[in-house]
Amino acid sequence: MPDVSYTLAEIVGRLGGEVLGDAQTRVSQIATLSSAQAHQISFLANLKYRGQLAQSAAGAFILGRDAAGASARPRIIADNPYAYFARVSALFNPPPEAVPGVHPSAVVHPAAHIADDASIGANAVIEQGAQIGAGSIIGAGSVVGADCIIGTGCLLYANVSVYHGCMIGDRVILHSGCVIGADGFGLAPDGGRWLKIPQIGRVIIGNDVEIGANTTVDRGALDDTVIEEGVKLDNQIQVAHNVRIGAHTAIAACTGIAGSARIGAHCTIGGAAMIFGHIEIADRVNVSTNTLITRSLTQPGTYTSALPFSEHSEWLKNAVQMRHLDSMAKRIRALEKKLGELEKNQHE
Amino acid sequence: MPDVSYTLAEIVGRLGGEVLGDAQTRVSQIATLSSAQAHQISFLANLKYRGQLAQSAAGAFILGRDAAGASARPRIIADNPYAYFARVSALFNPPPEAVPGVHPSAVVHPAAHIADDASIGANAVIEQGAQIGAGSIIGAGSVVGADCIIGTGCLLYANVSVYHGCMIGDRVILHSGCVIGADGFGLAPDGGRWLKIPQIGRVIIGNDVEIGANTTVDRGALDDTVIEEGVKLDNQIQVAHNVRIGAHTAIAACTGIAGSARIGAHCTIGGAAMIFGHIEIADRVNVSTNTLITRSLTQPGTYTSALPFSEHSEWLKNAVQMRHLDSMAKRIRALEKKLGELEKNQHE
Amino acid sequence: MPDVSYTLAEIVGRLGGEVLGDAQTRVSQIATLSSAQAHQISFLANLKYRGQLAQSAAGAFILGRDAAGASARPRIIADNPYAYFARVSALFNPPPEAVPGVHPSAVVHPAAHIADDASIGANAVIEQGAQIGAGSIIGAGSVVGADCIIGTGCLLYANVSVYHGCMIGDRVILHSGCVIGADGFGLAPDGGRWLKIPQIGRVIIGNDVEIGANTTVDRGALDDTVIEEGVKLDNQIQVAHNVRIGAHTAIAACTGIAGSARIGAHCTIGGAAMIFGHIEIADRVNVSTNTLITRSLTQPGTYTSALPFSEHSEWLKNAVQMRHLDSMAKRIRALEKKLGELEKNQHE
Repeated sequence: MPDVSYTLAEIVGRLGGEVLGDAQTRVSQIATLSSAQAHQISFLANLKYRGQLAQSAAGAFILGRDAAGASARPRIIADNPYAYFARVSALFNPPPEAVPGVHPSAVVHPAAHIADDASIGANAVIEQGAQIGAGSIIGAGSVVGADCIIGTGCLLYANVSVYHGCMIGDRVILHSGCVIGADGFGLAPDGGRWLKIPQIGRVIIGNDVEIGANTTVDRGALDDTVIEEGVKLDNQIQVAHNVRIGAHTAIAACTGIAGSARIGAHCTIGGAAMIFGHIEIADRVNVSTNTLITRSLTQPGTYTSALPFSEHSEWLKNAVQMRHLDSMAKRIRALEKKLGELEKNQHE
Repeated sequence: MPDVSYTLAEIVGRLGGEVLGDAQTRVSQIATLSSAQAHQISFLANLKYRGQLAQSAAGAFILGRDAAGASARPRIIADNPYAYFARVSALFNPPPEAVPGVHPSAVVHPAAHIADDASIGANAVIEQGAQIGAGSIIGAGSVVGADCIIGTGCLLYANVSVYHGCMIGDRVILHSGCVIGADGFGLAPDGGRWLKIPQIGRVIIGNDVEIGANTTVDRGALDDTVIEEGVKLDNQIQVAHNVRIGAHTAIAACTGIAGSARIGAHCTIGGAAMIFGHIEIADRVNVSTNTLITRSLTQPGTYTSALPFSEHSEWLKNAVQMRHLDSMAKRIRALEKKLGELEKNQHE
Repeated sequence: MPDVSYTLAEIVGRLGGEVLGDAQTRVSQIATLSSAQAHQISFLANLKYRGQLAQSAAGAFILGRDAAGASARPRIIADNPYAYFARVSALFNPPPEAVPGVHPSAVVHPAAHIADDASIGANAVIEQGAQIGAGSIIGAGSVVGADCIIGTGCLLYANVSVYHGCMIGDRVILHSGCVIGADGFGLAPDGGRWLKIPQIGRVIIGNDVEIGANTTVDRGALDDTVIEEGVKLDNQIQVAHNVRIGAHTAIAACTGIAGSARIGAHCTIGGAAMIFGHIEIADRVNVSTNTLITRSLTQPGTYTSALPFSEHSEWLKNAVQMRHLDSMAKRIRALEKKLGELEKNQHE
């Protein structure tokens, strides 16, 4: 736990914004409105919750300009209070710093290259020809394959696996259990059996990417799989071979992206979405949770295919009709035709 | 394989129930009706399968009261034969016992505290300030982060990752590849880029929880993620930051629970369900397989949204109509209106 | 990167097929049409892309008989050009070979048996009684549990976990993070709590199986979980206890198979499919992406239940009607009845 504190004046000195009330108020951590204590600062990201300010025990607040008058307590006014909160939290909770050196239990191949101030954790394994950049941290039990290049300031948590030949940019975070560069699912049918297609591409990961726990990114079949800079992947996502994910796209947990799909930049993809292979998704597309995208999307916008839930007995009655939609549509057409004829007859 | 045997009399002496037939019948393992041999005991959990008793080669049975007369073989009569089967199986197949001590290849920080009779496996890593309770087993290659507290009688299988500061109760089982305490997916949009929000909460896991292989439970953003006592999580489940799962809830594989959702106690959630963030689910709710829960559920009951499958060519015809449901509903309304007018005209 | 080259004549000498053009053309790697260079060979798997041949810089092609005339460049004509491509790629990119021996940092129990020419990687752990067959490679950080049998020519990548007692055939590939033999999700309700049912079956994996990164295959409850020969499982698949998957079936990523399901041979199952427990799927069934199979399938064919996506505002209008399908069906029936009566009246 961090042991630092700042006055509101010091915070705005570093991060901008404006103090209302006592700028010498000292805070030592950030917390939610409901759990903050008097020595902590809290924040209001959405004006509709401003009723909670009075109940909060926080010593100070971060507020948007529209909420500047919602409390009389010491407060920092920021244009984007949620982003400001993120920055204040990073001030109190900086990422772990590398303790330079190789733990004696780590296994580093003599032909690997570890920057002097990188940190290689207990029982980590760095294979032949791999390079670990300055200030990077390789967590306990992680394995970096032969000829991988890991940039500077990266953070691989415990038990990460990076296969041979992958290239990872600077300030990349890989969470535990994520697997970078396993073989794509490449099979050729051959007389009732499957012939394995060697997967000889790599995974290329840009700067400032974060990849969640147990997410898998497969290496390319022939060309590379590419995750562009600033992409954020949540946990348990599957990225198949030869996928390309555009810069600053964020993808929520449990999503699957099939082979050779190309996702644009600045997209957001909800949890448990599935993206077909060999399709292209434009920049700034939003895909909803649980949605299956089966063809290319050329226009920004939000796309959805989730089924609304209902109480089970209600669902049973409706679900049975889903198998009769085509027949229902035909019966409606037949009714319209007959009714039209009846009307004509009546007017004659 | 266990090498123990018990007479039926000894079993009911330990576990209750009543013997019919020769109480001195000795059995040495439990098995299914179809694979049991003469020295084994089998069980009938559902009366409708009683026809299989005669074909079974088992030397004895566990039966419910309603099936007491369904076989003349030596048998134990129990109120809840399925739970009784679980207890008999635990008798023959006790969980692995800790071989106290730290394997020479394990890396234990000098400022960690390992109970004398705990067992730390080969190449496991216990970081600074972590505590491992009495009788707990840490499997090969597992990593317990700084300042974690692991209770007594826990079993972490191989290659488990627990991030710093997490608290785990007593008799908790964590299966291989599960990741406890990775960062939640907290991002603030900031001028076209994503700002990482430090995740400073913990994961708190109650007593008697079991968590499946490759399941991930993220640490809280500011407050904690909480798994209450007796919760059972299957494999490959994703639990996002600040979720709370109530006591004795069981969740099947591949389910995802988004941030800050609160699941009640004694719920069952089917496989591949998805639960939206920031919603609340009452106690004793059942969610069906593949169901997406998009809003709070205040009443116990069963909720479903799965789509029934059909033969592909049939599905094609029906699926195309799903995009016309709104128009179908409007056309039905129009038909009803016109037909009403026609009827009125005819009666005039 | 491989450093080998072959003439087209040498390739057909090894793999069959026929050369058109200069058989002494020498190539040193395989590549896609768009990225191939003059010293590389490319391939055309589908006649409709033959327009791309002219633009490709490849020095030679692999073509089907139907495309033999689509280019005048040196080319190999094959009956199944995609399978031929797989074989040529395997020629240029052979799987890694075992460097026989046990890495000094690996922990091998004295009562384990390692074949002389097997390779045990850094920080791997082989527990008591386990057997590793000739030519098999155990990757860094992988853990092979007590009494496991791993056949010959297997390849376990880094950080794989195999629980005790599992049996793995020959030439099996297990990718990083996959977990074989964790406990199935076996629970008996007992007075508001869950009683754990010991999982005493094993996982039995046939020859030539490949299992993707972070896929989990649970051990059987009493009997075994069985993956038959030639099965290919992609990443992040969940196979529950007592499932049996028939020979040469291929399953795409993120699919879940519930307990005791039996999948036939030569099936293909799309990504993120979910298969109910205790059902049986015939041989040569194809299940589409995102499809939920809720009952047994006795006939070969393709089965689907995916919901088509639409633009979000469009989806909102249609989704609301899914809860009214039963009422829509009833209203159509009522309309048909009334209209029939009207027609009858009119004709009287």
